[in-house]
Amino acid sequence: MNKQIYNTHNRDDQPFIHDGNHASDGSEPALASWRDGPTKRAILQFVEQVTDRNSPTYVAPAKRIAAFDNDGTLWCEKPSYTQELFIIQHFRHCVEADPQLREVQPYKAFWENDRAYFKNLTIQELGVIIIQAVSSSLQADYEAEIHDFFVHNQHPTYHRPFTETAYVPMLELVCYLQDNAFQVYIVTGGDTDFVRSVSEIMYGIPRSHVIGTSVEIKLDVRDGQPILARQNKIIEPFNEGTGKAINMHLHIGQRPILSVGNSDGDIDMLHFTTHPDHPTLPLLIQHDDDEREFAYDTGAKKAQEMARERGWHIISMKKDFQRVFAFED
Amino acid sequence: MNKQIYNTHNRDDQPFIHDGNHASDGSEPALASWRDGPTKRAILQFVEQVTDRNSPTYVAPAKRIAAFDNDGTLWCEKPSYTQELFIIQHFRHCVEADPQLREVQPYKAFWENDRAYFKNLTIQELGVIIIQAVSSSLQADYEAEIHDFFVHNQHPTYHRPFTETAYVPMLELVCYLQDNAFQVYIVTGGDTDFVRSVSEIMYGIPRSHVIGTSVEIKLDVRDGQPILARQNKIIEPFNEGTGKAINMHLHIGQRPILSVGNSDGDIDMLHFTTHPDHPTLPLLIQHDDDEREFAYDTGAKKAQEMARERGWHIISMKKDFQRVFAFED
Repeated sequence: MNKQIYNTHNRDDQPFIHDGNHASDGSEPALASWRDGPTKRAILQFVEQVTDRNSPTYVAPAKRIAAFDNDGTLWCEKPSYTQELFIIQHFRHCVEADPQLREVQPYKAFWENDRAYFKNLTIQELGVIIIQAVSSSLQADYEAEIHDFFVHNQHPTYHRPFTETAYVPMLELVCYLQDNAFQVYIVTGGDTDFVRSVSEIMYGIPRSHVIGTSVEIKLDVRDGQPILARQNKIIEPFNEGTGKAINMHLHIGQRPILSVGNSDGDIDMLHFTTHPDHPTLPLLIQHDDDEREFAYDTGAKKAQEMARERGWHIISMKKDFQRVFAFED
Repeated sequence: MNKQIYNTHNRDDQPFIHDGNHASDGSEPALASWRDGPTKRAILQFVEQVTDRNSPTYVAPAKRIAAFDNDGTLWCEKPSYTQELFIIQHFRHCVEADPQLREVQPYKAFWENDRAYFKNLTIQELGVIIIQAVSSSLQADYEAEIHDFFVHNQHPTYHRPFTETAYVPMLELVCYLQDNAFQVYIVTGGDTDFVRSVSEIMYGIPRSHVIGTSVEIKLDVRDGQPILARQNKIIEPFNEGTGKAINMHLHIGQRPILSVGNSDGDIDMLHFTTHPDHPTLPLLIQHDDDEREFAYDTGAKKAQEMARERGWHIISMKKDFQRVFAFED
């Protein structure tokens, strides 16, 4: 069904679209951009195990849930979260419209590009700023602003549209799972609407399969038409850490059997995926390729320690990815 | 995809299952249990409009969202909500385990079957009692108790398992929409978990497509395994009235183009479905068949008035349904 959504999606009104999803035409083998090795073999073996009706490890399609973190897992999160750049632009637009805001934080920091101000923000603190950025606006206006951001901006070091900054091997993995009747979800700490705005066109993942951090919504009526207004309050729990497991339960109603993350905020999602009664595959991406991407382990050390302790598979971008981005070739 | 979920669902561990879903074998025409008339014609015409690629009214599959209320829309809600009977049983079990609770409300009312106590409860007030019934319990225990209820109880007047109390024409409508690449959701005021426990087997609707009223969840770890514990607090908004529109936005990320309800609690969902830019089909069921079902309009008068005012189609159970339940024949 996802494939159908992906293929029939009307792109005429989406000028920034790049078809980064390469694996679905059936002409190349599964996971073609993955190097042969223990990680690729583990994935292929796992999918075979759960789809073989004659195996005791068979899992019915209804229970084949896969969960992907977004930032640093599906697309590049360096040198800055894409959403952070969107917020910077939003605040700068606010200051341009009202110059007095130049002396008010956090507008001042955004206007002066004061990286030090943001450097030590946790993703939760960033979340509060996101809310300030978007509160009291109409949902439709907010979505239009996001769309506009993706049309007019590009990645600061790759100089490509952000919609091209997905990791090709991960796009292949999403496709491969969908082809095997998995329901693939994005489970992100980022703003739900921000990620929904590109989930179909970048990943072939429908809007309804994006579970992120959301703000409260109020239903108003304007000119006789119901409209959605964004409120100045995050819906708890924030979709990081235990929040990812809790919100998966609320939205999906069952645990994933495969999940992929890259940071400490994904530990609970990966742990929630493991279950003694079923075959499960928790995967942790390691950013160890400073030539093709960025090498870093800040905010991921505990996750890597847990992965080693519990035998979660680690995806090395350097060793496991034949290529990283579609624009490399 | 839903069809696949439905057909491959492992039923061996589900002793109470009845296959009420008749319309999917392709051997009969669509909506075979609907009588010819303006309602059936409006549904067929609407689906044709939105699926015809050459029509200006074409809607891409990704946007074909349908929302169904549950109680009184998909299954019978009289003489009592099924969930109410589950709760009564739960409270009686509590009193049997601790006889002192006989003198404590609401246990006393449940124990004495004091209908007057419950008669004037709104669905919200009932919700608070539901929470009392299930708070502080483990999610897995709660789901087991629901499963047990469906195995061991039957409808008080039809003397059939509750899983057989779905309206056949509505099952056909769900199937017909899924066959036409609609994503069909249940949007219910009832407890999300209660409805999820039967959504796949009764309706062929996956657990993830049930949006109901939920309680807060906490993630605990027991014996090294992550477990979900239910908390004594409903997640706002309660999934009735405007809550249905708000929660659809949060879970689906877009408006339905077709929705079906039967009571005043569905007005906002039906209103949220209408949109001047797209073809939309809001449908309101009228319980006017006192021979085959129950005739009542308590709690639905405002919805019926709105339907007449705004031209929403009314489904008359008496006139439009060739048959109501699968067990009639």
